[in-house]
Amino acid sequence: MNIITIGREFGSGGRELGKRLADALGYAYYDRQIITSIAKKKEMSAEYVEDALELNSLQNFAFTFRNSFASDDVMQSTRIDLYTEQRKVIEEIAAKGKNCVIVGRNADVLLEKYHPFSIFVCASTDARVKRCLERTKEGEQLTEKQIRLNMKRIDKNRATSRNIITEKDWGERTSYDLIINTTGREIKQLVPAVAEYAKAWFQAEI
Amino acid sequence: MNIITIGREFGSGGRELGKRLADALGYAYYDRQIITSIAKKKEMSAEYVEDALELNSLQNFAFTFRNSFASDDVMQSTRIDLYTEQRKVIEEIAAKGKNCVIVGRNADVLLEKYHPFSIFVCASTDARVKRCLERTKEGEQLTEKQIRLNMKRIDKNRATSRNIITEKDWGERTSYDLIINTTGREIKQLVPAVAEYAKAWFQAEI
Repeated sequence: MNIITIGREFGSGGRELGKRLADALGYAYYDRQIITSIAKKKEMSAEYVEDALELNSLQNFAFTFRNSFASDDVMQSTRIDLYTEQRKVIEEIAAKGKNCVIVGRNADVLLEKYHPFSIFVCASTDARVKRCLERTKEGEQLTEKQIRLNMKRIDKNRATSRNIITEKDWGERTSYDLIINTTGREIKQLVPAVAEYAKAWFQAEI
Repeated sequence: MNIITIGREFGSGGRELGKRLADALGYAYYDRQIITSIAKKKEMSAEYVEDALELNSLQNFAFTFRNSFASDDVMQSTRIDLYTEQRKVIEEIAAKGKNCVIVGRNADVLLEKYHPFSIFVCASTDARVKRCLERTKEGEQLTEKQIRLNMKRIDKNRATSRNIITEKDWGERTSYDLIINTTGREIKQLVPAVAEYAKAWFQAEI
């Protein structure tokens, strides 16, 4: 079984790269589906689960979430519960034994025993802001300033939540097998190269 | 013309990867040859040129080099002269118009107008020390402590000398197209994957 994991900076195109890579290789693809699985098991809305797992801090969480009357303690225990469920869902995916691409959720660390090929996708801050502005839906009207703040907040949360389970720091060059910089590149142009790398990687049984 | 540039951490196996990659692709390979070209032009020994371009600081240079009576000013002007010559030699290589792999010397920045495919090779500190110990020639007898100090000093010099010519920091993920982590891997196992990536990269005219 070949597992490819993709960590990414917000707005770097990592998710698109993961989806296209899975298509190119004929692998299963997991991203948002992990959230919906957790939501179903926990009888929560997918939006709730996503917010809880992506928010910057418990404090922010308590202040910004719809159940704002809940105490920090309740929030904290909910989050821990959701992280635990997330780990289980990711392990269930691997246990299926199918070749797959998993985006985010520290799957590279959680599935270490399966020796995944781990990729991290990055881009310059300006390139990421540009990508976010391009994909903003009409009516959403996020300003560039709001996008920059969101980007920083989400990535900070990714970095800190990763350190709950590993010393391999988020985004650090020695924490992954390969880091791909998408600055100034079209994701679809990069996909054949990444697919060829992955094929040769698994063929060499690295 | 396809140019691949390889930056690397000391002891990461970047040089070996560059050589094997050039062989796999049938490209010309440039590394130490750049030093010998400069030495020939300047009528200096290759050892002198290499020391001057790899040393940590001008102060160290003045204290440790055989002409230790020379003033800092003389040392500084010699180094600037050598960096300038290095830039010229690298530009001459590119002007030949042949596909090639160039290791080190910030060739990715110096040859930006040729749109090189830029790789950075890294590994964990422990993996790099291990690689250095394995390749230490008998009789050299560098201790692990000396290797760690050398590693740190040389990489620090690479980082600072890079900033003379660019804002793209040495070893930073958004300064290169691709970062390859060799920790726990055999270089020769990685080469087919990197070669396939490079082929697809140039085919897509990225």
